[in-house]
Parts: sequence; structure tokens; C-alpha cells
Amino acid sequence: MHKDRFYTLTASCPDRVGIVARVSGFIAEHGGWMLESSYHADDMDGRYFMRIEIKADSLPFNLTELQQRFRPIATEFAMDWQMSDSAAQKRVVLLVSKQEHCLYDLLARWQSKELDIEIPCVISNHDDLRGFVEWHGIPFHHVPVTTDNKAAAYAEIARLFHEARGDTMVLARYMQILSPELCRAHPGRILNIHHSFLPSFVGAKPYHQAYQRGVKLIGATCHYVSEELDQGPIIEQDVIRIDHSDSVEDMVRYGKDIEKTVLARGLRYHLEDRVLVHGNKTVVFR
Amino acid sequence: MHKDRFYTLTASCPDRVGIVARVSGFIAEHGGWMLESSYHADDMDGRYFMRIEIKADSLPFNLTELQQRFRPIATEFAMDWQMSDSAAQKRVVLLVSKQEHCLYDLLARWQSKELDIEIPCVISNHDDLRGFVEWHGIPFHHVPVTTDNKAAAYAEIARLFHEARGDTMVLARYMQILSPELCRAHPGRILNIHHSFLPSFVGAKPYHQAYQRGVKLIGATCHYVSEELDQGPIIEQDVIRIDHSDSVEDMVRYGKDIEKTVLARGLRYHLEDRVLVHGNKTVVFR
Amino acid sequence: MHKDRFYTLTASCPDRVGIVARVSGFIAEHGGWMLESSYHADDMDGRYFMRIEIKADSLPFNLTELQQRFRPIATEFAMDWQMSDSAAQKRVVLLVSKQEHCLYDLLARWQSKELDIEIPCVISNHDDLRGFVEWHGIPFHHVPVTTDNKAAAYAEIARLFHEARGDTMVLARYMQILSPELCRAHPGRILNIHHSFLPSFVGAKPYHQAYQRGVKLIGATCHYVSEELDQGPIIEQDVIRIDHSDSVEDMVRYGKDIEKTVLARGLRYHLEDRVLVHGNKTVVFR
Amino acid sequence: MHKDRFYTLTASCPDRVGIVARVSGFIAEHGGWMLESSYHADDMDGRYFMRIEIKADSLPFNLTELQQRFRPIATEFAMDWQMSDSAAQKRVVLLVSKQEHCLYDLLARWQSKELDIEIPCVISNHDDLRGFVEWHGIPFHHVPVTTDNKAAAYAEIARLFHEARGDTMVLARYMQILSPELCRAHPGRILNIHHSFLPSFVGAKPYHQAYQRGVKLIGATCHYVSEELDQGPIIEQDVIRIDHSDSVEDMVRYGKDIEKTVLARGLRYHLEDRVLVHGNKTVVFR
Repeated sequence: MHKDRFYTLTASCPDRVGIVARVSGFIAEHGGWMLESSYHADDMDGRYFMRIEIKADSLPFNLTELQQRFRPIATEFAMDWQMSDSAAQKRVVLLVSKQEHCLYDLLARWQSKELDIEIPCVISNHDDLRGFVEWHGIPFHHVPVTTDNKAAAYAEIARLFHEARGDTMVLARYMQILSPELCRAHPGRILNIHHSFLPSFVGAKPYHQAYQRGVKLIGATCHYVSEELDQGPIIEQDVIRIDHSDSVEDMVRYGKDIEKTVLARGLRYHLEDRVLVHGNKTVVFR
Repeated sequence: MHKDRFYTLTASCPDRVGIVARVSGFIAEHGGWMLESSYHADDMDGRYFMRIEIKADSLPFNLTELQQRFRPIATEFAMDWQMSDSAAQKRVVLLVSKQEHCLYDLLARWQSKELDIEIPCVISNHDDLRGFVEWHGIPFHHVPVTTDNKAAAYAEIARLFHEARGDTMVLARYMQILSPELCRAHPGRILNIHHSFLPSFVGAKPYHQAYQRGVKLIGATCHYVSEELDQGPIIEQDVIRIDHSDSVEDMVRYGKDIEKTVLARGLRYHLEDRVLVHGNKTVVFR
Repeated sequence: MHKDRFYTLTASCPDRVGIVARVSGFIAEHGGWMLESSYHADDMDGRYFMRIEIKADSLPFNLTELQQRFRPIATEFAMDWQMSDSAAQKRVVLLVSKQEHCLYDLLARWQSKELDIEIPCVISNHDDLRGFVEWHGIPFHHVPVTTDNKAAAYAEIARLFHEARGDTMVLARYMQILSPELCRAHPGRILNIHHSFLPSFVGAKPYHQAYQRGVKLIGATCHYVSEELDQGPIIEQDVIRIDHSDSVEDMVRYGKDIEKTVLARGLRYHLEDRVLVHGNKTVVFR
Repeated sequence: MHKDRFYTLTASCPDRVGIVARVSGFIAEHGGWMLESSYHADDMDGRYFMRIEIKADSLPFNLTELQQRFRPIATEFAMDWQMSDSAAQKRVVLLVSKQEHCLYDLLARWQSKELDIEIPCVISNHDDLRGFVEWHGIPFHHVPVTTDNKAAAYAEIARLFHEARGDTMVLARYMQILSPELCRAHPGRILNIHHSFLPSFVGAKPYHQAYQRGVKLIGATCHYVSEELDQGPIIEQDVIRIDHSDSVEDMVRYGKDIEKTVLARGLRYHLEDRVLVHGNKTVVFR
């Protein structure tokens, strides 16, 4: 992360000659200083992806005007695009259950400003982690989920996320499956950490499945939530070595270390606008 | 690998008090020097596994007599057991197709004596690698496999393996599926390298599957061949990081590096009697 | 970790025939159930190492009597040995400065009982983390260290550690160099996490050193503290990939993830009596 | 690697506004199709680096004319730059001693066209690997090196490299230290694989040094050779886990797997013009 304030342009469009020239020409013309720029051509689909950081004070106008002036180019190239401002903190709502490893990890990063975000609230289906969250000065909402109240519970979560003006929802080992409506409403904005190396061991109890199959590595996957369980676009994955002497309980313990690291990395890529969704896959400009 | 000649005992039996005491007591009583010893208790199944290396010249008798004298203990504890002699080179038959990376890798290890084995022959469904194999002084058998001649071809492979007095068959990127009869005839003695991190991407074209799913790591799996495709006990696995910029061809290229390394590690564990099969899983005493 | 209460024997002695037989024979004779056992022969130095877990309720007597009865064997084989009881929680004193990542990580593990220890107190040369520590119900001692008061400060730390009846001291990114007296007084009982892959980049600002040298991986090292800076026996290490685009600040950020993971692993090995010091090296029975 | 013929521009220059705009504008103006483009700004040194692949047949002229037309821009921005043609195979001279693992690995990659290079000859201070090299149809030169003939030997190597019109020299576990003259004559064109994770364990017998220090990971480093031993710019590194049970011989064996992989990766980056040297460091556009 650069210390100076910057604007980040992310865009994708059909590939053709002159995209970089046009975009970088536009930026240079206004004196824009590019701090970082990344490009990717998907040869299979003929689509072009880019991410550019422009130093804010190198431009003679603000983000709104930058967007206005860029619009004709975006239209000309049929771009899906967005621009963000590094000075505008993202608002990230965390959903947790009883396990604390991801929550402690994220709050440590938030506390030390490694994650430069607002956490307007934490939502949980259990009340266990209230004290820890509230000690950090963050509001905590207990929204129990039972077989009978699911619709109401998810409506309440949607309401809290809306009320909190959330940008991003993070399922930090939240042990419930969100409703299809909720998933559909926020594509590319809900991150989950799944405790297996997807596509292996979809669904419940992946460490039990891994134990049964006798794999020699276990993993974790950070992905965007889509309507189909554990099938959304993968952002980040990692694995850790195990062996025959490890029980399911050992795997659960090792797995936590991977889960929190992979979630933190995936979340950072997302927050820094490094992730561009492309169908059910992602381009991640690290 | 120890330089001195040694005998390796591998055994498994129902767990109970006194197994190690009885076995190590027997060895000590004859002056046997244990170079290396490993034990594992499977708490779920109540089964005990062990592997012990005994320096050959510390014993006053040879392997045959050692086996005879050990038999009563094995019977008393209801052991599945075997003993091998580090001086008796294993006879490993390699099966290849057209890709050379695993073959070059294994022959380099054999040439340098890192793999202290006999390779009585290499069998292939293509003739491409004949020259390379024969330059190393190893007989090469071309056994074409077509949709029509499968039964005959597999019978010929079985015959060649038998004739070569093979201990172990290694499918070093052999692009054919062995017959169920062949698999059944040599349980725990045919090793395959599958070019995915199993259980993800079973069967054909795993790199294409990985590309479609957008995973961030690809892997390889060395396993014993069983009748069911890619379902046998896993011996070793590893992964390598990829990203959105990698095409299927890039994955194939990266994958080769993992495939040959994982196969070489798995094969070494097997040859040093470090792998004990337990149902569809393995205990690997590294 | 096994759920049943167990005693752990760790021992090393000159290598000879019959060590395992004698020790396991002794255990079996009293009906002792071995949950886990590991052995290592150092061929260079002719020294033998072992670690055995015995189920407590399989023995007809308690730990004290077990120790008494074992003593003659230990004497016979000239063993360095100790026995511990899984029911006796270790008392771990944490030393921190201002950085919170290792502290959050360790307290998350302690909170979830993954680390089954007592933390009688946290000591720091800064007051910043007091609130977080005290929220967890753990006493916090602020012991400022200046160029002038070093001797008094270290005496105070020694006093607090003694008063807390500490078994183990953990420097969880404590940015001061302990006094030689303190190091000498607790060999094999003070763990440090150094933010480089030792022996590269000893001393101050290792990430700056790594940046200057242009390495492609950075690491962290958990080691026992000895009198010579960053030269003590290494318990655990790991690395993470970086590239030319990473600034020193990026390395610091990535490094934290490695530091906390490596410290947690090293500490767990230590607490479970899996680490046997051998000269300036360690045997780690994972 | 793209299948279509392309030209690769690599350049570095003082950082300022408009570099990408100017370069990509020039390319677009002639209809140039950018297959891949990577940029890096070194904020500490204020220097900008880039690498661009342009599809050859998208341009209306050949490489020579492209270079001519680009020259004014290069001058304007004070660039260090070069352009290469993917159709022009690089000529890589290998230097080996007795160990074959890197040689087998590189020749397997060359044989399968993974490495699309010419190998005009292999030079060795021993005659052992002649047969293997010549079987591949590659000339082999035996240039013995003794304490007395060093100057003459290195002159002969220089002559052979010149005669072979070599672009790149690869020390594939060549166990001699090249003369300062030879190193000076070919900066950024001689690659070495050192069998440690530099800067740890410079010089001779790094595995012995690693064993003595008791590290828990060993590594390998691919770097450009400079006059100072093992101090040149690092291109690629990797590590592998070891433990207390591994002897120096085991490390040597594990190390080989890392050495050949790291050398192959580093060499590929170099051959694809992905490595830009910057002082004693490298920018590697993977």
C-alpha cells in the first residue's frame, strides 16, 4: 500500500489494439502519476483486464471529475469499470459464530492499521464473542439463526448490513449458509473462508472428509459467495502438510492457521481492488 | 539411507500394551542395533504400526533366521509383517508414454545411485523414448495399446513384469488405464502419478478442469493403483502456486515439476518400505 | 494432543544396543500404554534421543513413583531425562513491546484452549497493550527499559518471572535484548521469534537487510535464547515468497504472518516437550 | 509462452509522468498488439521498469525497423533498453562437473521443447557426462581445471563460448569458481545455481554449514555471477523442509531437487527476458 492518497481504476473490456495507450495517454495528459499498473489479457475469452493506481495530488481535479472525464473512454472500449479513492475507508461487516481465530486475526490487523478499514459492526448467531468485539469499540449484533427463523434472520442481517452502509461482508467462519437472496443481492461483495482446498471437500465437515480420504495436505479457500454452496469465484487458497499421525482434531487446529491467513490475504486483495471477477473466476493483481 | 546393510521390519497389528517392548526386546536380546524406528497408533481403528531398521552385522544370524525367530512374536500379536534386506535391490519396471519428464528424472536418480534399484525394463505404448532408455543400457518394450487390443496388451505387460521379476511397477505418466485384473494382482505394488491434487480433478485433463474452476494452486498425487480410477491410497502430494495469467499450457508445464518430484518422493518412500497401507490410506514413516 | 491424561518421558543418552527394549520393557511391565513414541539416533555424535507418552491411568502408580522406579534405568544408561504430566499446565510469561500481532495470535489460541497453558502475566517495556491483556483477565506489568536502567529492568523481569512461577518465557516480538544473566539462568526456557530466516540477517532491521540483498523469500525463526544474539538453538522456521514490487513495509507486513505462525508452532513443540536440545541444535519430535 | 511470434521490449529509466503512455502510444500507433505487459516503479530509487510483448505480425515492419523507430523515445526517456525476437533461439552453453541432476533436468526440458533454446555445447572439467551429452547430439568439451592451469582453462572456456556464439552461460552445478575476467566480461549473462538459501552459507559445503547450524529448511539460489563469490543479483530461490533426522547426505539429496527446479525457473525467466538487473538486485516480471 502506498502512503500517498491515490485513486484506483479497475476495468475490463474486449481486447483490442490500443487500450493501454488510450488509458495511460488520458492519465498522462492530465499529469497523472501512475504508482502501480497491472494488465492481463485473457486469450481464451478475448478480454482485457487492468488495474491502475494514480497518485491523487498529481491530478488537477478530484475523483468525481476524473470519473466524468474517463467515461467517454470507458464507453468507447465497452468497459466494465470502477474507480476508488484510497482515502475512503471501506466499511466491512464481519459475520462470526463461536470460533474466534479469524476474528482475533482480523481485529489485530485492524487495530494495527494493517487493515485500514471501518468495521461498523460484527454480527453473530451466537453471543459468545460479544465482549471481545465490544472491547474494541465495535457494535455487536446477536442474530440467532434456527431452522424456523431463517428468513427473518437473513432479513435482519440484510437490514443491519444496509444500516451500517457496508461495502463488504466477511464470513469469518460463520457457520450458517446465507440465503440465496442475500447472495444474489451482493455479488462480489461477500467473502467466505471455506476450510478445504476447493473443489475438494465441499460442504460440511471437510476435515473429516480429508481424514477419510487420507490426503497429505489440507487447505483453505477464500471465495466470493454465490448462490451455489462453495462454488463462487476463488480469490485465494493455501495448504499445509499433514501426515498419518494427525487426527481430525489436529487437522482442525492446523487448518485454523491456514484459514485465517488465506482469509486475510483474500480480504486485502479485495479491499485494495485487486480482484476482478471474470465469470466464475478471478483475476487477482497482487 | 544408512550406508551399512540393514534389515527393515514393517508390521501392523491390533494395538495393546507391550508391542514395542516385545519387539525391541527380541531385537536387543540378539544384540540387534536399531538404526531407525518409527511407531504409530491409530486411535480410531485401534491398530498399531511400526517400522524398524536393524543393522545386519549386529545380528549373529541372517535374514532368513531372523524371520524364523520373529515369526512366533508376529503370530502372538497377530501382525501383518514383512522384513526386507537393504542389500537386495528392488526391481522396478517403469511404464511410460510419450512425455519424458518423469523418465529423465527417475533415470538421473538411478544413474547417480540416489535410487539404488534395478530397472529390468521400461515398457511403453509408444516407441518414442526407446533410444533414451536403451542408451542407459535398459531394455525397452513397445507394447501398443489400442481400443481393440487392450486385453492382449495388458496380458503382455503382466508377462513382461513377471519375466522381469518385477517388485514394483511405476506408471511414470503412462497415459493408459491399467486393467482391473492387473491392478488386483499387485495391490500396493503399482504406483501412479496423477496430475492433480486428489480428490480434486479425478480422471482426464485435470489441468483443464483446474483452469475452468479457477483454482490458485495446482498439484500432483502419487498413489497406489487400485481398481477404481484415481481412488487408491495416497502416498504423497504437493502443490504449486499459479495465477490468472497461467494458461492450461502453463499449468501443464508447472505441473511437470510437481509430478516428477512427487513421484520420486513417493517411490523412495515405497522402496525404503516406509509406506504401510491401511485400508484406503497410508502410514508413511518418513 | 491426546485427550486422556498422560506422562511424557523425554530422554537422551549415549547410543547402544537395548535402550528402547529396556525403556519400553519397563513401561510394559507395569501395564503402561504408550500413546506416542519417537526415537532418533544421531549417528555423528553417537547419541540417542527419545520421547514417549504414557497414558496415566494405565499405570498402577503416580508420576512421582514412576520417576522413582525409572531412575535406576536412567542411571544405567546415563540419561539426561525428564517426565512431565499433561494435567499440569505450564506457566508461560509473555514479553511484548508495541506490536500486537503475536500477542493477539497467542491469546486467541489460549482463549480457545488450543494452547492449554496458564499465562500468569504479560510484561512489556511499553504500556500500549495493557488494556487488551487485562481484558483477558491477565495481569500486565509495565517495565520500561532505558539505556540507564537496563540492569534494574532485567532484575525486575527476573523477579516477576520468579514470582509468577514461570516455566517458560516467550519473547513475542519483545524489542529488547535480554541480559546475559537472564539468558544464562533459563537455558532452553526462553523462546524468541526472530524476524528473519536465520542465520541470514542477524540483529537489527532484518527486513531492511533482506530488501538490500534482494532475496526472493523472507522468513522467521523461533529459537531458544542464548547469550549470543540470535545464535541459540533453532526450533522452527518458515518463509514466504516476496518479489521486487515489495517494499520494506510490505515485507514487515508479510513477515508478521510468518512470525506469529512460526512462534506458535515452536511454542507448541516446546510446551508438549517435543524439543530436545542437543548442543546448539534441536531434535523436534513433531 | 505465447505461440505467436512476438518481440519483447525490456526497458528501465528514471521514473516520471507519461512513460507508459508514450511507449504504449507508440506501439498502438503502428497497430502493435500487446500480448503481455508488466511495469514496476522503484519508489526508493525513482526508477521505472517495464517489459512488453508485442505480437510480431501485428506490426507493419520488422524488429530492426521497430528498434529504429523506438530509439528516439528511448533517448527522450534515457532508457536502458533492449528488444528481442521470440523466433531467435537463444544459444545457451552449459557448464557441468560430475553431478548430473541439473544436466538431466535441463536436457529433458530442452528435448521436450519446454526450453526453446539452442545448446551449442556443454563444457565440463570432467569427462564423465560426455556420453549422455553426445547422445543428445550436443558437442561436449572437456576442459580440465587444475590449480596450475586455471588461467589457460578459463581462456579456453571463454574461447569456446565465443566460438559457440553463446548468449548465456549456465553453471549447472559446475564446481569451479570462474575467473574475475570471465565474470566481468559477461555481466547478467552467466547464471549459477548455489546450493543454499543465500545469503546464508556462502562458499563451500553449504549443506555442512546448514547441518552445523541446525536450520529447519534448506534452499537453493539462482543468481547472476559477479566477481564476488555468491554475491551476484538473485533471480530465484526456494527452500525445502528438513528435520533433525536428516544427515548431510540427506540434505544433499533433497537439495538436488530444489537446485534443479530453482535453476530451471531462473533460467526460464532469464531466457524470456523477464529479469532486469537493478544494481545488485533483480526485477523479475513473472
